[in-house]
Amino acid sequence: MNKIRVGIAGAAGYTGCELIRLIERHPHAEICWLMTGPTHAGKRLRAVFPHLRAVHDRPLLPLKTLGVEKADVVFFALPHGEAMALVPEFLAAGTRVIDIGADFRLKNPGLFEKWYEKPHASPQLLSEAVYGLTELHREEIRTARLVANPGCYPTVSILCLAPLLREGGLDCRSLVIDAKSGVSGAGRGLSLKTHYAECDEDLQAYSPLVHRHLPEIEQELTFLAGQTVTVVFVPHLVPMIRGMLATVYACSSGKERPESLQDQYEAFYRDEPFVQVLDPGELPRTKDVWGTNRCEIAVRFDPRTGKVIVIGVVDNLLKGASGQAVQNMNCMFSLPESTGLDLIGVYP
Amino acid sequence: MNKIRVGIAGAAGYTGCELIRLIERHPHAEICWLMTGPTHAGKRLRAVFPHLRAVHDRPLLPLKTLGVEKADVVFFALPHGEAMALVPEFLAAGTRVIDIGADFRLKNPGLFEKWYEKPHASPQLLSEAVYGLTELHREEIRTARLVANPGCYPTVSILCLAPLLREGGLDCRSLVIDAKSGVSGAGRGLSLKTHYAECDEDLQAYSPLVHRHLPEIEQELTFLAGQTVTVVFVPHLVPMIRGMLATVYACSSGKERPESLQDQYEAFYRDEPFVQVLDPGELPRTKDVWGTNRCEIAVRFDPRTGKVIVIGVVDNLLKGASGQAVQNMNCMFSLPESTGLDLIGVYP
Amino acid sequence: MNKIRVGIAGAAGYTGCELIRLIERHPHAEICWLMTGPTHAGKRLRAVFPHLRAVHDRPLLPLKTLGVEKADVVFFALPHGEAMALVPEFLAAGTRVIDIGADFRLKNPGLFEKWYEKPHASPQLLSEAVYGLTELHREEIRTARLVANPGCYPTVSILCLAPLLREGGLDCRSLVIDAKSGVSGAGRGLSLKTHYAECDEDLQAYSPLVHRHLPEIEQELTFLAGQTVTVVFVPHLVPMIRGMLATVYACSSGKERPESLQDQYEAFYRDEPFVQVLDPGELPRTKDVWGTNRCEIAVRFDPRTGKVIVIGVVDNLLKGASGQAVQNMNCMFSLPESTGLDLIGVYP
Amino acid sequence: MNKIRVGIAGAAGYTGCELIRLIERHPHAEICWLMTGPTHAGKRLRAVFPHLRAVHDRPLLPLKTLGVEKADVVFFALPHGEAMALVPEFLAAGTRVIDIGADFRLKNPGLFEKWYEKPHASPQLLSEAVYGLTELHREEIRTARLVANPGCYPTVSILCLAPLLREGGLDCRSLVIDAKSGVSGAGRGLSLKTHYAECDEDLQAYSPLVHRHLPEIEQELTFLAGQTVTVVFVPHLVPMIRGMLATVYACSSGKERPESLQDQYEAFYRDEPFVQVLDPGELPRTKDVWGTNRCEIAVRFDPRTGKVIVIGVVDNLLKGASGQAVQNMNCMFSLPESTGLDLIGVYP
Repeated sequence: MNKIRVGIAGAAGYTGCELIRLIERHPHAEICWLMTGPTHAGKRLRAVFPHLRAVHDRPLLPLKTLGVEKADVVFFALPHGEAMALVPEFLAAGTRVIDIGADFRLKNPGLFEKWYEKPHASPQLLSEAVYGLTELHREEIRTARLVANPGCYPTVSILCLAPLLREGGLDCRSLVIDAKSGVSGAGRGLSLKTHYAECDEDLQAYSPLVHRHLPEIEQELTFLAGQTVTVVFVPHLVPMIRGMLATVYACSSGKERPESLQDQYEAFYRDEPFVQVLDPGELPRTKDVWGTNRCEIAVRFDPRTGKVIVIGVVDNLLKGASGQAVQNMNCMFSLPESTGLDLIGVYP
Repeated sequence: MNKIRVGIAGAAGYTGCELIRLIERHPHAEICWLMTGPTHAGKRLRAVFPHLRAVHDRPLLPLKTLGVEKADVVFFALPHGEAMALVPEFLAAGTRVIDIGADFRLKNPGLFEKWYEKPHASPQLLSEAVYGLTELHREEIRTARLVANPGCYPTVSILCLAPLLREGGLDCRSLVIDAKSGVSGAGRGLSLKTHYAECDEDLQAYSPLVHRHLPEIEQELTFLAGQTVTVVFVPHLVPMIRGMLATVYACSSGKERPESLQDQYEAFYRDEPFVQVLDPGELPRTKDVWGTNRCEIAVRFDPRTGKVIVIGVVDNLLKGASGQAVQNMNCMFSLPESTGLDLIGVYP
Repeated sequence: MNKIRVGIAGAAGYTGCELIRLIERHPHAEICWLMTGPTHAGKRLRAVFPHLRAVHDRPLLPLKTLGVEKADVVFFALPHGEAMALVPEFLAAGTRVIDIGADFRLKNPGLFEKWYEKPHASPQLLSEAVYGLTELHREEIRTARLVANPGCYPTVSILCLAPLLREGGLDCRSLVIDAKSGVSGAGRGLSLKTHYAECDEDLQAYSPLVHRHLPEIEQELTFLAGQTVTVVFVPHLVPMIRGMLATVYACSSGKERPESLQDQYEAFYRDEPFVQVLDPGELPRTKDVWGTNRCEIAVRFDPRTGKVIVIGVVDNLLKGASGQAVQNMNCMFSLPESTGLDLIGVYP
Repeated sequence: MNKIRVGIAGAAGYTGCELIRLIERHPHAEICWLMTGPTHAGKRLRAVFPHLRAVHDRPLLPLKTLGVEKADVVFFALPHGEAMALVPEFLAAGTRVIDIGADFRLKNPGLFEKWYEKPHASPQLLSEAVYGLTELHREEIRTARLVANPGCYPTVSILCLAPLLREGGLDCRSLVIDAKSGVSGAGRGLSLKTHYAECDEDLQAYSPLVHRHLPEIEQELTFLAGQTVTVVFVPHLVPMIRGMLATVYACSSGKERPESLQDQYEAFYRDEPFVQVLDPGELPRTKDVWGTNRCEIAVRFDPRTGKVIVIGVVDNLLKGASGQAVQNMNCMFSLPESTGLDLIGVYP
């Protein structure tokens, strides 16, 4: 079988370098080119990511290069708003696209404009784009031309809630998602918020109630529940490089018993290679999924208050970004989903 | 005025060394002796805390020493269950007591036994002990013989909720407290959970729904609300030394408007030297209260879901432990509460 | 006694906010104004340093303000090259100056130009400026109009070597200083090097052999030794906020014995309030001086190789910057050196 | 080809879990059993290392099990002093042994007893054991029955110095090795030194001049130089999980020029898959080799002082321990050395 030819647009950020790592060790894919924005275009990869000096030393092409070698699939790992104008020409050329950014996640162009404060450049593609939470949409992903890879917070939040919402009976106005992320989620761009002396030994909530991942979460949960779901979403910045943990609080429908909840979650994810429901005595730690594409989930029922608590962890750069993107690529090219993703976490 | 003579029982832990720091620089108090458990008794302070080598080098006496010099007040900073047998003899001798541990916080001896898995050694003192959240109980603290200093999680949680619950009208079954703590909250005792390579670059929830601070929180919130309050409480361990942040979610009574909430909080804490309600555009960070006795709080109303979100931060070893203990001592000895606590945080 | 009126030029950086903390709690000094560069001029202090919101909320004036209130002393905490043009007019107005930056440390204007790549704007002041390592120059500091506060690396390096070099007999070509600094030493300016995800969990040497603190170290050591001293100086960036440790290696003169070295160091620093020679069984840790103006030093002789090893620690923002600046101010205004600097470290 | 059957004695520590990770993904090796000391023997692997729950869940056998399945090679990853009594019976049974611990590194049993404070249990094997710094001893490793895997500090220190010492002409009494290690190097055993709140935000030297890796370094450097080499060795503990950096200072023979030094290093390591000499403008960072078996080295000549400075980095658990052990296994079983070690670092 010929290797899948992969282009990466946005190779100089953290999701970009994770993609390079994964594709370089993928048995059925290979990089054909790397592009990046104007800051780094024209440099060699080694100058931007010295840790890759032993791997290879490709040139970083500028974005929008015409006449670039035809790839089978292009990953976009760009700041939001930059992919949406470029995607149509790749699709037109017969290249499939996986956008790790936010441009194609919301189905409603008005919602996109409200949250991202600019009109969408390719609104005609929004209905076609498949939301790339593989566990929920793999059938459509197989044949998709355009996959909108989920945000990191939505990935872990939706995986925590999907078994509950599919089942029905939940009080859908009662959902609280308290999420915590390592600092790499903010990317490689400089800011005082991610300046070492400012964020080390600090913890803060940010964008409570108004984070851009909120409409994406509600859109998917509404789809799952078959009724309007509203969510309270408060993200926090944690002084660690990687890792994301969501603690989700829901009012039960009154029918749950602890055993059945556990069974329900185990059944829902039984055949999933990357989602594991922990045993009743276990709790997830971000370190346990560090460097892997895995999501680990624990579920608890509180009989005193009638609340269901679900705790989930992912590596924000892998299952929360580049790992899931490769999982989607595998799906699109009829490979087993875990191809090239059979990673064992580096511990400690 | 004569200086207040202070004894510290439990000087070899983190709350102990914070007490030493505070009392050493307190203009109206002085240390008369230090005691500690068998591991360190008999050593010099310098051997246990070399960072104090420049301050003084007292001996660490064993606990239970008879014939110890009479102190005006004794701080207990011992693991739970160790103070309750020792306190009566100090009270009998006319010494006032501030217990930073958990032994006198719960009013109900049965509840103590249930959560701490041993019968209470001095149940007759439970009704007399005053819960030392200064902002709420300062009148009783002034004349108290025995103050039960609150836990770190209860301090920040209750301060976040008090203005709401006093006002009434809240749905008291809907409270969710998602709390996050730095590692020093687990103390100086060794465990795999606090081993550097295990907890650095890791985030985890622990004891969800069953942490020992839960009954203490519910007891005080019930007292404040005048009706039974139940709480979902999930604490998390964050890879930083100090700092505690609580994100509290409550269903409003339907009467709130954003402006009035802000006003309500500002009014409630207007004259408090150690609690500050932030401006509507601000959010608290643990680093902003690092090394101080302050609590900073932000409040938000979400009209989409009808939820009130309150975010509060403290330094877990100061307002969450030793700082509040000194605030209570000031109160007990008719000093201005901020005496010796007028700390400016060391930043960054 | 009237309080010393203090101006701070460069209040928006880390040394600036440490100065504010120290002066605010200094019993004999008070801030009369704060200035800062164009990025923050015009803002309120609270907007730049929210952790100071409880202290006061002064305006940040632009640099070079004419007609500013006359201060008794001005601290300059600006990037190198910015103070040297401003200092003369303050001196002319009768204000004394302590420059925490690098502009007045080197005596030789040619050397300044070589290392800082611009001509000196006030070369006539270089010979007058007193190098503000208080322990070595306090007599001249008392009457100085202009004090050049040492760099952080030079402070700890010179304090480690002074007793050896004063004594004579050392092989002055054999000195190696391997120094390690926390990240706050790089300031509050943004750079990839101090971006959290880049420098956390990383260790690197930087500017080996060519760091700008090298000529300053050699100038002072040469002065101490009475002969030309050359040094190999390699600094390293360590993933922690504060703290600096220097490990110094020297070839002995062949006369040392372990006991005499220890004695020599203890004698040299016997009366110093801020320098402590540790007992032979002790080793310094940066955490032990965290938040204080102290330097702790251990000395070892290796009979196998004839080398002397000296290990010293300081808090880079205190004894390495703002703390020493206040120590110098105390000296200039005939106050006990430890006035306002009697800090106990916040531990852990 | 049959897979190499691997036994791991000491599977519950950090080097143990890294070995498991590497062997599980090695194309030509497989684990046949795991043993561990009494603390964890009898448990399942998942209970000790939950991050491996997705890999497999083997039992942890007790050490010294008779009748254990015959392995082709056994890795010992035990505290020093525990392997030396067990190794002979494995060798006698025809199993080859790689000891990651310290028991077989020193050739002189008296030296072992002096530094490890107990007599050697199998002194007859010391001359046979091959020091497993692959780059220097691969010819003997190929046929060795017993390989003594180097310590982490010796690995990076010797790789930094080998090209200089092989060349000759160095002043062999002038060597200074200032080394810095992440905390995982201290293992998984609990101690106050590795308690999070104690070692985070702290930097300290430890065991200066008397660390147990010193005799091992001198033994190998003496072998390389063909004359007695003495070293000043000062290790430091750095608040990060992984990573090791050595800064090495040597007096040149007077013949070096910067260009020739660079050439000399590049020539020495030209064909090495795991050692890379950086370009003259580059400096190594521990993060660049994080999670890999690589060593990166920069060399500088200081014409002012005549010193050569070499800076090297490794991941202490990989090239400094388990990675090099697998490299040695590959060598012993005639596989390309990079088999199963072609790791791309997880960045950031």
